Amino acid sequence: MSLNTFGHLFRVTTWGESHGPALGATVDGCPPGVPIDANMIQHWLDRRKPGQNKYTTQRREADEVKILSGVFEGQTTGTPVQLMIENTDQRSKDYSDIMEKFRPGHADITYWQKYGIRDYRGGGRSSARETAARVAAGGLAREAIKALLPGVQINGYMTQMGPHQIDRDRFDWDEIENNPFWVPDAKAAADWADYLDGLRKSGESVGAIIEVVARGVPAGLGAPIYGKLDTDLAAAMMSINAVKGVEIGEGMSSAMLTGTLNADEIFMGPNGPEYSSNHAGGILGGISTGQDIVVRFAVKPTSSILSTRKTITKSGEETEIITKGRHDPCVGIRAVPVGEAMMACVVLDHLLLHRGQVGENRGKIG
Amino acid sequence: MSLNTFGHLFRVTTWGESHGPALGATVDGCPPGVPIDANMIQHWLDRRKPGQNKYTTQRREADEVKILSGVFEGQTTGTPVQLMIENTDQRSKDYSDIMEKFRPGHADITYWQKYGIRDYRGGGRSSARETAARVAAGGLAREAIKALLPGVQINGYMTQMGPHQIDRDRFDWDEIENNPFWVPDAKAAADWADYLDGLRKSGESVGAIIEVVARGVPAGLGAPIYGKLDTDLAAAMMSINAVKGVEIGEGMSSAMLTGTLNADEIFMGPNGPEYSSNHAGGILGGISTGQDIVVRFAVKPTSSILSTRKTITKSGEETEIITKGRHDPCVGIRAVPVGEAMMACVVLDHLLLHRGQVGENRGKIG
Amino acid sequence: MSLNTFGHLFRVTTWGESHGPALGATVDGCPPGVPIDANMIQHWLDRRKPGQNKYTTQRREADEVKILSGVFEGQTTGTPVQLMIENTDQRSKDYSDIMEKFRPGHADITYWQKYGIRDYRGGGRSSARETAARVAAGGLAREAIKALLPGVQINGYMTQMGPHQIDRDRFDWDEIENNPFWVPDAKAAADWADYLDGLRKSGESVGAIIEVVARGVPAGLGAPIYGKLDTDLAAAMMSINAVKGVEIGEGMSSAMLTGTLNADEIFMGPNGPEYSSNHAGGILGGISTGQDIVVRFAVKPTSSILSTRKTITKSGEETEIITKGRHDPCVGIRAVPVGEAMMACVVLDHLLLHRGQVGENRGKIG
Amino acid sequence: MSLNTFGHLFRVTTWGESHGPALGATVDGCPPGVPIDANMIQHWLDRRKPGQNKYTTQRREADEVKILSGVFEGQTTGTPVQLMIENTDQRSKDYSDIMEKFRPGHADITYWQKYGIRDYRGGGRSSARETAARVAAGGLAREAIKALLPGVQINGYMTQMGPHQIDRDRFDWDEIENNPFWVPDAKAAADWADYLDGLRKSGESVGAIIEVVARGVPAGLGAPIYGKLDTDLAAAMMSINAVKGVEIGEGMSSAMLTGTLNADEIFMGPNGPEYSSNHAGGILGGISTGQDIVVRFAVKPTSSILSTRKTITKSGEETEIITKGRHDPCVGIRAVPVGEAMMACVVLDHLLLHRGQVGENRGKIG
Repeated sequence: MSLNTFGHLFRVTTWGESHGPALGATVDGCPPGVPIDANMIQHWLDRRKPGQNKYTTQRREADEVKILSGVFEGQTTGTPVQLMIENTDQRSKDYSDIMEKFRPGHADITYWQKYGIRDYRGGGRSSARETAARVAAGGLAREAIKALLPGVQINGYMTQMGPHQIDRDRFDWDEIENNPFWVPDAKAAADWADYLDGLRKSGESVGAIIEVVARGVPAGLGAPIYGKLDTDLAAAMMSINAVKGVEIGEGMSSAMLTGTLNADEIFMGPNGPEYSSNHAGGILGGISTGQDIVVRFAVKPTSSILSTRKTITKSGEETEIITKGRHDPCVGIRAVPVGEAMMACVVLDHLLLHRGQVGENRGKIG
Repeated sequence: MSLNTFGHLFRVTTWGESHGPALGATVDGCPPGVPIDANMIQHWLDRRKPGQNKYTTQRREADEVKILSGVFEGQTTGTPVQLMIENTDQRSKDYSDIMEKFRPGHADITYWQKYGIRDYRGGGRSSARETAARVAAGGLAREAIKALLPGVQINGYMTQMGPHQIDRDRFDWDEIENNPFWVPDAKAAADWADYLDGLRKSGESVGAIIEVVARGVPAGLGAPIYGKLDTDLAAAMMSINAVKGVEIGEGMSSAMLTGTLNADEIFMGPNGPEYSSNHAGGILGGISTGQDIVVRFAVKPTSSILSTRKTITKSGEETEIITKGRHDPCVGIRAVPVGEAMMACVVLDHLLLHRGQVGENRGKIG
Repeated sequence: MSLNTFGHLFRVTTWGESHGPALGATVDGCPPGVPIDANMIQHWLDRRKPGQNKYTTQRREADEVKILSGVFEGQTTGTPVQLMIENTDQRSKDYSDIMEKFRPGHADITYWQKYGIRDYRGGGRSSARETAARVAAGGLAREAIKALLPGVQINGYMTQMGPHQIDRDRFDWDEIENNPFWVPDAKAAADWADYLDGLRKSGESVGAIIEVVARGVPAGLGAPIYGKLDTDLAAAMMSINAVKGVEIGEGMSSAMLTGTLNADEIFMGPNGPEYSSNHAGGILGGISTGQDIVVRFAVKPTSSILSTRKTITKSGEETEIITKGRHDPCVGIRAVPVGEAMMACVVLDHLLLHRGQVGENRGKIG
Repeated sequence: MSLNTFGHLFRVTTWGESHGPALGATVDGCPPGVPIDANMIQHWLDRRKPGQNKYTTQRREADEVKILSGVFEGQTTGTPVQLMIENTDQRSKDYSDIMEKFRPGHADITYWQKYGIRDYRGGGRSSARETAARVAAGGLAREAIKALLPGVQINGYMTQMGPHQIDRDRFDWDEIENNPFWVPDAKAAADWADYLDGLRKSGESVGAIIEVVARGVPAGLGAPIYGKLDTDLAAAMMSINAVKGVEIGEGMSSAMLTGTLNADEIFMGPNGPEYSSNHAGGILGGISTGQDIVVRFAVKPTSSILSTRKTITKSGEETEIITKGRHDPCVGIRAVPVGEAMMACVVLDHLLLHRGQVGENRGKIG
C-alpha cells in the first residue's frame, strides 16, 4: 500500500503523477478563518517552478494552483482545502525508450517490485513533481501560522553543493533571494554558478545540503515520545525525494562533542530563558526551546544523467542506459522551497497540537 | 499533548516514567501465532540493561519483563500484548537537589514549559529509561519477523565514539558481541576502552554514531510518499533520546557525490537484481531494494556531567549546576540495542503493510 | 477542526462544498492492479444523481466524475486515486434569503457555532451533496472487492418510508431496480408513490429506513475491539447526512429477545458452518460469520420544507423561516446508494486489514 | 489484525483477556494538570463490578485499579496513563468443557476463524470483562472534563428490559442510583426485579436498552464529516459487547416523522439559542447544539444460557451445548456504566479537538 498523508492535525494528502492530468494536495484540519487566496499560494509555487533558469529542468510548467474547496469569501472555512495543479507540459515521448529499463538510483525498479505496475512517464508518483503539492500545502500552512502566531519566519537555503560549502562568516539572510541557488553567501553563489554550469554541460549532476530555520517559534511545541518535533521534522525531510540524511542542530557532528561542549548553558533574558549556544537546534526532549529551530538535509545527485550506466530490463536482461530527459543538474536547488514547506507544515501541526492539549497549563519561568 | 504510539499496523505505545512503579509497551497489531515467551524478550532487554559494566550508568535495574496479555499457550493471539517492566531501583533522593534547576542540554526546561509539571525524579518520561520498553517491543517484533520471514538479520554496532571511528577494513560481525561497546573492530574496542575510562573518571561524557543494518529484507517494502521505509526509519531513530542526526546509506555525504558515482548499477544475479554498490542504503523511492538496509544515527553526549554549568531555576534566577546522579559517560552504547529494536519494529510494520496491500501483484523481474 | 477521512487502510477523504467549483474523494490505499475507468464509477453516481424523477431534488447536476490520478493504462497503480466531480448547477441565488437565518433541523446553526463562518450556499460542506463523493469512492471499492474477492454482492433498499413498511413476504431482489425508491416489494413501491406525491405537493417531507446487505463476505473480517466490523459500519452509516439510528441484524429489537431465541444455532454445511437464523446480522464479536451482513439505518425527514417554522437570526433575533429551495421530499431515497457505498468501503477496508495481518493463520473448521 | 485504540486525541488502548494475569487501559493524550488518584477511578469501577447482587454474574473480582504511570503528585503529567486491573478470580476450570465447542451467539467461532487461536478461558479478549478497562478510562475522562469544563453531567440508565419499558412520566434522575438496574422509574425497578429473578432461575437471559445523556456540553463539539459527534458515539456504543443498535435522539423512529414534526424550532434564550424539542438528540450536522446529548443502544441477551442449543465443534462435528459458567441474566445492566464511560471519552475527545482547532473563531449568536 501507500501512505500519502502527512501530519497529525494539519493533515496533507498529496496526490497525482508526473504525467497525469493533475496533481495536488487535499488539506484537512486547517483552522477556520485564515485569510487565503490562490495568489498567496502561487507565490510559493513560483519559487519552486521548474524552467526558471538554466540550472533546473527545462520542463515548463505553469504550476498554476486552483483552490477547489474549503475557502469561502477569502478565508478558510475549517473544511478540507483542495489545492489542484494541472499538468500542462507532459511530453511523455521523452520517456518511451526507458519503458523496459530501470534507471540506476531511481525508484523505477522498486515501484515495479512493489506494485507490479510501472508508470514510466516521468517516474509517475515517484517523480519530484509531487513536491509541488507540498509547496502548495506549505503556502497554506504559512498563512495559518501567520494568523495564529505572527512573527514566525521560515527560511531555507543551500549550505553545500558537491564539495563546496558556504562560509558562515559571510552569512547574509538578504542574499538568499538574490541568487538561483538560495545561498546566503554572495561569493559562494558566484563560484557555484560556474561549477554547476560545468556539470550541466557534461550531463552530470551533484548533491547538496539544505538548511531550514524557523525563527520565532515559542517554547513548548512538540509531542513526545513518538511525535517529537525533531522526529516529525526528520520524517518530513526524509520523505522528500532524494534526501538521504537529516540533522537537527549539531547533527551528526554531535558524536564528536563532549557533554561540556554540547550542553547549551541557560541564562535569564528579558523575555525568558536564553541560551549561550544552540547545539540543540532549538529542540530538547523533542520540544521547542524558543531558540531557532534548525534542520539540515542532504539531497543526493539526481540519477538521471547523460553518462552510460549498467542496468537490467523488466525481463531481467542486462543492458545499458542513458537518461536523455529534461532534468536538474542539482535537484537540491528546488528542494529548498520544499524543505521550507515541510517545516511550515510541521510547525503548524505542532502549534495546533499544543493549543488543543495544554493551553494555560504551560509552565511559566520567572 | 503527547503522542506515545509508533507504527502503522504494528503499533507500539510505550508508557511509564523513570521513577514510577513500572513502565512498558502496549503492542497492538502483532500477528497471531507468533511463538513467544518472556525469556525471548528478556534476552534483548538484558543487552540494554544498565549497570553491566563500568561504562554505563550504575543504576541497577533487573529490567524483568512480564507479559500481561496477548499470549496464550506460548503464542500470540492477535490481541494486544502488554509488556511490563517494574522499576525496582528508583533512588529518587539523588535528584532532590535539582528539583528547582534545569539541567542544560536536558529536557527539564522544555517539559516544564510544555506541561507546567515537572517530574524531577530522573527525568520522568523524558528519561532514556523509556527505551527499555522499546527494546521489549523490538524483541517481540523480531520473533514476528522470524515467523513471517525467516532469514532477516538485524544488527547494530557503534562506528564512532567522539573523534574515534572504526576502520571498515577490520569490520568483523563476530566481534560485535565481544566488547562492551558493540564495536565490529577489535582494535577500536580496545582503544575506546581506555578513552572512555578517562572520560568517565573526569566526569565527562561523549557522543557516538550507531549503525544498524537489516539483512535479508526482500525488495518491495515501504509505503510512499509519507510512509517511506527511510521516512519511518528516520522518525524511529530520531525519536530515541539524544539522537541529533539520521542517515540512510551514503547519508549526508551524498551531497558530495556526482550522479555517476552515486547511482548503484544494476546487474542480474541468480536470485534477482544485484547492485554494484549500496550508496542507497537499500532503499530507492522509499522502497526496499533487497540490499542491506543501512541506517546510521548520531547520539549526543549525555548532558548529565560533573562539570559546573550555568543555568536558571524555575523562578528565573541564574545559578549553576552539577549533576551528581548515576549516568552514562557514553549513552550511545546503550542506544545500540534500542536502534536495533526500532529497526525491527519498522521492518515488521512494513512487512505487514506490504502483505496486506499488494500480495501477488508484486512485480516479477526476469 | 474537521475530520474528513474514513477508513483504516482504504482511506477515503472527501472534500468540497455544495456550491463550490468541485467536490471529490481522495482515495489512498487502494490496492494496485484493480481494473478501473471513469465509466465504472459513473455507473454508481448515476444511481444517486439528483433530478432523475419527481421524488428527488430538481437540482440538475451532471455529476460527471473524472479520475485525476492513481490510474494508469486502465488499472490502479497503488497510489492515491483522485475522483473529482465538478459542480455545474449551483444557482446560489436560491439561498440568499436565508443568509442570516438558521433553518431548524439543519446544521446551519452548529456550523456557525463551531467555525464562526457560514457558507450559506446550499449548506456548504454540510450539504448531502458531499455524499456524491462517497458514492464515487464506493464505486472504486466495489471494483477492488471484485478483483480481490469475486462473489461479494452489496445491495441497499428501502424498508420503510414514514409509517409504511415493506412486507418481507413479498421481498424480491429483482424488484429493487424497478422503482424509484429501491423498494424490494412491488406493491409497496406503488403505494409509496402516491403517498410521497402527496407529501411533495404539500411541501412536506418524511423519514425512511434503509437496509444494506453484503452477501458473500467470508468469515473472519473485523478488527476487535475498536475496529469491529459492526463498529465501523455504525460509524459509516451514522456519518451519512440525516441518519439518526443504525442497527445490525436484529438491531434495537434484540432488547426484546431472550437468550434462547437470540442465539443463532450452528450446523455443519458442505462449505463450512451454517446457521439456523441470522439475528446477529452476520457479525459475532465484531467479526464476520460468513452469513449475510445486514445493517439498517434511519434517515430523518429533510428539514428544508415549505411550512413556516420558528427560528432565530445570527444576531439572535427571533423570526420565522420557509425554505423554498429545490429539495427532496424523502432524502432517504438518495441515501440508498450512499449506504451501499459505505458498506463497500467498510468491507474492502476489512478485507485489506485481514489479508495483511492473519494470512494462513486463519482457523479452519472441519 | 486487531484495532484496540479508541479516540482521536484522548486515545484509549485497552488490553487484556478475561483470564489472563491483568487487563487495563493505556490512555494517551490526557491533558496535564488533571487532579486524579486511584480512588477517583475506583469509584466508577465499583459501579460496574460483577457479583454485587443476584442479577449479575457471580464471578467475584476486586477490580482494583492501579495507576502505573502518567500521574505525579496527584495530577496528570500529560504522559500516558497506565490503568491496570489484576484478575484475581479466574476459575478457568469452568470453561474446560467448552474448549472444543462453539457457543451459539458468542464470538468463539469468529475469533477462531479469524485468528486460528482460541482462548477458551472465559472468552479471552472477547469477554465483556474488557469493559472494565473502558470504565477505568472513562473515570479519568470524567475528571479531565471536570477540570476543563465544569458542569458537564453524564448519566446512563436502562429504559427497557425485554418487553418492559420505563414510563417517561415517572422519570426521576434521583431514582437511578436506588436500584440494581439503574432505572429512573421506581415502579419499573420493582417490576423488573421479579421479572429478572424468574429469568435467572430458569437459566434464561434477556436484552435491554440503555440511554446515556450528557448535559451541559456546549455547542460546537463534533468533527464533520467522518468524526461527527454522533458518528463517534455510534462507534463507541456499537463497540461494546453485545450491542446491536445505536440511536441518537429520535433514533430509528425518525423514519416515521414528517419534516414539520422533526425540526426542533429555535428560540432565543437568556444564554443563547433554545429549542422547542430535542428530536435531534443534541446534535445537528454532527456538531453539538448545546442541548442534552442523547444516545441509546440495545444490548442483546447474553448467549451463555442454561438451555441446550445446537452447535458444532472445531473439527466440524454437530453437537449440543449448555453453558454452565457464571453469567449475567441481563448483561445490559452492567452495560450502563460502560455506556457512560464511552460517552465521557467521546465528549472529552471532542472537547480537546475543538479547543485545538477553533478557539476564538467560534461563531457568536446575538
